[in-house]
Amino acid sequence: MENSLKELVYEFSRTAWNEYLPHLSIDCVVFGYNVANMKILLVQLKDQENWSLPGGYIRKEEDINQAAKRILTDRTGAHDIYLQQFSVFANANRSQDFFEEYEDGLWNKQRFISLGFYALADYEKVNPVVDIFSSNCDWIDINELPNMMMDHKLIFDQALLNLRRELNYKPIGYNLLPEEFTMPELQRLYEIILGKKLNRGNFYRKMIGYDILDKMDEPRMEGKAHKAPNLYRFNIQKYNIALQDGLKEGW
Amino acid sequence: MENSLKELVYEFSRTAWNEYLPHLSIDCVVFGYNVANMKILLVQLKDQENWSLPGGYIRKEEDINQAAKRILTDRTGAHDIYLQQFSVFANANRSQDFFEEYEDGLWNKQRFISLGFYALADYEKVNPVVDIFSSNCDWIDINELPNMMMDHKLIFDQALLNLRRELNYKPIGYNLLPEEFTMPELQRLYEIILGKKLNRGNFYRKMIGYDILDKMDEPRMEGKAHKAPNLYRFNIQKYNIALQDGLKEGW
Repeated sequence: MENSLKELVYEFSRTAWNEYLPHLSIDCVVFGYNVANMKILLVQLKDQENWSLPGGYIRKEEDINQAAKRILTDRTGAHDIYLQQFSVFANANRSQDFFEEYEDGLWNKQRFISLGFYALADYEKVNPVVDIFSSNCDWIDINELPNMMMDHKLIFDQALLNLRRELNYKPIGYNLLPEEFTMPELQRLYEIILGKKLNRGNFYRKMIGYDILDKMDEPRMEGKAHKAPNLYRFNIQKYNIALQDGLKEGW
Repeated sequence: MENSLKELVYEFSRTAWNEYLPHLSIDCVVFGYNVANMKILLVQLKDQENWSLPGGYIRKEEDINQAAKRILTDRTGAHDIYLQQFSVFANANRSQDFFEEYEDGLWNKQRFISLGFYALADYEKVNPVVDIFSSNCDWIDINELPNMMMDHKLIFDQALLNLRRELNYKPIGYNLLPEEFTMPELQRLYEIILGKKLNRGNFYRKMIGYDILDKMDEPRMEGKAHKAPNLYRFNIQKYNIALQDGLKEGW
């Protein structure tokens, strides 16, 4: 018979005290984008209705970025996902209710200060891994999020807010779009992150004005040739230079 | 005779294990502004050449913001300083060299992941407190920073970068300027934070365009009456509404 979540947690706790830094956890908001849909990776722990962000702990000698990478690789098999630490979630009783029925002294029941990371991926290229603690691990559209445990919805909200602000000085577009894309595809990504419609002419003018895109010689071949949309790709050198100052810094 | 830093640290260590969360520290970059000078609060520990950021630890039941406030109040006597957590400094061996000569098992010698906070204050209103561990605590101009211990210069650099980015969506100006100020004074603050000269006409136009300032009826009375500069003050209601979207979000 399968073990319950409770049994698994008690077993994990026995070795965790030696292996990980106490009081510190990592929660990851993994944004996945593909053809005009933005999703995040969510986990449903065994015996739980609410979903949670993929997360884990930091080994005693491990850098926090290494730890976040390891956690994501375990969940996705992917090794080259863009990762960014963005905030700290530290309410003294943020996990108190969840572990109320567990015994004191359990690793998971101590006070955890969680380092929030966000990650950027193409969800078509990532296969969620259901581990022994969970019954589900899935990409879920950010407009259809289920109930989430503890403060995980707050962590998601903060991550999205950060993504919005960082559109101007982090390579967000570069990490979410395929190598070549059309201008409407780029605009759609911005609209989804910003949560609002943008004017097509303004968007085109600004993007061209930043001088960070290379226009491909060949348009995308689909349907009628005279309607084939132009393809662009980021000029990563120019993009990185522009990002240093912030794409919109008008001062 | 006065105790050495080493003796004081060993004494502190005995009770610290019971009082604070292990592995977690707080470092504060306290920006102080007054009449066109930007300084930060720095501490010189006893027997040390290098300076350090004011910092401390988190009590076992304490919220991280409470902890940062307590640390700043101890250092400054001030209770209402604007505080913002901005990044995490977690290199596995960031404090290894500094504590090399100390014994293992010492509280201060464990691995610390530091939560960086920045704070905003008027340095004329804050009196630095020299505590038992330190020989100096002073406001030092950001253009004349001395050598700093461990990764504290990096923490300062990151804090300044954050301040620059957050000029657009955090009440930075409101927390650093006196209640009433002239447009050149506001421009000077922006120039110091951004680290570059700004065009006077553009700055004036943009600031008025944001519609976040109230112009006072009376200009500042100094020198010749016909040259008295206009005084402004932030309209905090309008300012907060504008900040929600980001002052410069042009999309």
